[in-house]
Amino acid sequence: MVEFQIPQATAKRLSIYYRYLQLLLDSGKDRVSSTELSEAVKVDSATIRRDFSYFGALGKRGYGYDVRNLLEFFSKQLNQDRLTNVALIGVGNLGHALLKFNFHQSNHVRISAAFDVNQDITGTIQNGIPVYPMEDMKEQLKLQQIEIVILAVPANVAQKVTDEIVEVGVRGILNFTPLRVTVPTDVRVQNVDLTNEMETLIYFLDHFGNK
Amino acid sequence: MVEFQIPQATAKRLSIYYRYLQLLLDSGKDRVSSTELSEAVKVDSATIRRDFSYFGALGKRGYGYDVRNLLEFFSKQLNQDRLTNVALIGVGNLGHALLKFNFHQSNHVRISAAFDVNQDITGTIQNGIPVYPMEDMKEQLKLQQIEIVILAVPANVAQKVTDEIVEVGVRGILNFTPLRVTVPTDVRVQNVDLTNEMETLIYFLDHFGNK
Repeated sequence: MVEFQIPQATAKRLSIYYRYLQLLLDSGKDRVSSTELSEAVKVDSATIRRDFSYFGALGKRGYGYDVRNLLEFFSKQLNQDRLTNVALIGVGNLGHALLKFNFHQSNHVRISAAFDVNQDITGTIQNGIPVYPMEDMKEQLKLQQIEIVILAVPANVAQKVTDEIVEVGVRGILNFTPLRVTVPTDVRVQNVDLTNEMETLIYFLDHFGNK
Repeated sequence: MVEFQIPQATAKRLSIYYRYLQLLLDSGKDRVSSTELSEAVKVDSATIRRDFSYFGALGKRGYGYDVRNLLEFFSKQLNQDRLTNVALIGVGNLGHALLKFNFHQSNHVRISAAFDVNQDITGTIQNGIPVYPMEDMKEQLKLQQIEIVILAVPANVAQKVTDEIVEVGVRGILNFTPLRVTVPTDVRVQNVDLTNEMETLIYFLDHFGNK
C-alpha cells in the first residue's frame, strides 16, 4: 500500500491504466510495453514510467510490464475487491441517467440509494435503486453508512444539501452542480462540470484551432 | 483577443469566472475583490490574479475588479455572443440526459442534431432536437457544418465513429466513452470519464482520508 500522497493527476490515471490492463488480460496478453500502453491510453510513456515508479512497479528493459502483476497491483491500490456504496442526491434528468449508468464499468462502485423531492418517484425503485424522499436523507445516509455522494440537485439548493450531508458524515462529493460548494477541509469534492468542459473545448478551437 | 496559448487550466477556469461574474451582476454587484472571487469559485486568489494577468485584466489595489468590465472581457474571450451548434452521437441513457441538459446554463452552446441507431427514436424530435439515423451522420454533419461533437456511443464503436466524424471535418470531441480515442493532431478531445472521476475520489478517501 502506498501511504504517501501521490499527485492527483497520477491518481486519476490509475483507473484508466487499470481498465486498459483488464482489457489486455481479457484478450490474452501477458505483457505490455510502456509504448503500447502509452498509445492506448493517450498518456506519454515518460509519464507512465514516472506514474508507475511511484508504486515501485518497474518494467524490465526489452520486456515491458507483466500484465497480471500490474493488474493485481493496481487492483489492490484501487480496492477493486471491495464494493463502495454511494448515494445519488437529485434524480432529475442527469440524476436519472446516472442511475441507469451506475458505474457498470467498475466492479467496486455502486449507487445503493437515491434521494429526490419528486413524489412521483420517491418510495419507488428505479433501475434497482430505492428512491427516498429528501426528508429521509440524513437518516438513511447514517443508517447505510454512506460516505460518498453524487450531487445532482439544482444549483440553488446545492450548498444547503451539502451542509446537511457533511453533517451526517459524508467525506466525498462528486459534484455535478455548477456551484462550487463550500465544505470543511476534510471533505473532498470532485467537480464534474459539463458546461465548463464544453466551453473549454470551444475556447481552444476558437482561439488556437488546436495548433 | 488573446492570441498566445494560455494554459489549459486557465482556460478551464474562464467559464467558471464568467458564470460567477454573471451571478454577481444579476444580483446588482459592481465590483469584486480577488478574495471574494476566490471564496466563491474555490480557486486561490494568487491563481486568479495570475489567470487574469494573462488577459491584462488587472484590478486596482483596494478596489478590486469592475464586474461589468470583467464580464464583457470574458464574454468576448468565450465568444458568448455567438452560438456554437454541436451534435450528439449516441442517444442512449447518458445521451438522452445530455439532450435534456443541453447546456442550458450557457447561451452559446446548443445541441442542434443527434444521431443514433435505435429506430424507435430516429426520425423523431427529442427535446426539440432532431434525431437522425447513423447512416445520415456524415452527410448531416457536413450539411450543418458541425465541427464539435459529443461522443456518447458504446465503447466498442467509439473509434469507428471517431474516424468517420473526423473525416467530415469535426475538430473537437467531448468524449463520454471510456475509450481514449485516436485522432489526428489537429483534432482536440476532451474526455469526461465519470467512472474515473468516482474512482479517483474513492482512491483519495481510501488512502489519505483527504488529509
